[in-house]
Amino acid sequence: MKTGSEKIVRLAELEIDPVQLEDYIALLTEEIEASLSKEPGVLMLHAVSVKGAPQNIRILEVYASQQDYEAHILTPHFLKYKTLTAGMVTSLNLVDVDPIALLAK
Amino acid sequence: MKTGSEKIVRLAELEIDPVQLEDYIALLTEEIEASLSKEPGVLMLHAVSVKGAPQNIRILEVYASQQDYEAHILTPHFLKYKTLTAGMVTSLNLVDVDPIALLAK
Repeated sequence: MKTGSEKIVRLAELEIDPVQLEDYIALLTEEIEASLSKEPGVLMLHAVSVKGAPQNIRILEVYASQQDYEAHILTPHFLKYKTLTAGMVTSLNLVDVDPIALLAK
Repeated sequence: MKTGSEKIVRLAELEIDPVQLEDYIALLTEEIEASLSKEPGVLMLHAVSVKGAPQNIRILEVYASQQDYEAHILTPHFLKYKTLTAGMVTSLNLVDVDPIALLAK
């Protein structure tokens, strides 16, 4: 059933060097805003940090299709984020997930 | 700064008895749909299951305020969910988080 046209949903779990956390969050926010505004195939990027341990970041990501995801990781704004944060991210775990219900106002 | 009027954002991490997973997902879906449609203060409930280990559920929850959250857990639809799933949930970890960016189309 991997037709390439089904939605891609993922939960990214990151740990950031605490000393660089402020710079990381600025770069992540810029990347999320650019992705949502410039890419029709990026449907959702919800990033949060754990209270009391803000170096632990979770991002719920939804892409319209596998092709949209593959296009996303080649965009200038994503490549800028990936390059500039490479020395800030001490751990990255990408968890593929299936949606059960994604409801919001 | 706990004024009670700031948004409550949380990531719930649950593990479900695999034998009861289908029933659990039906009850969770019903509860999410009722909460979003009936409660102005429930802003987002995004539930996903881990691919390959679908008994592992993650729910990103956003409530408009602490008061809205406290009202939510006393609603008939939440109490129904909580009661009927009590014997299905083998592990529950509620992680308080701060939003960094919550953007969606």
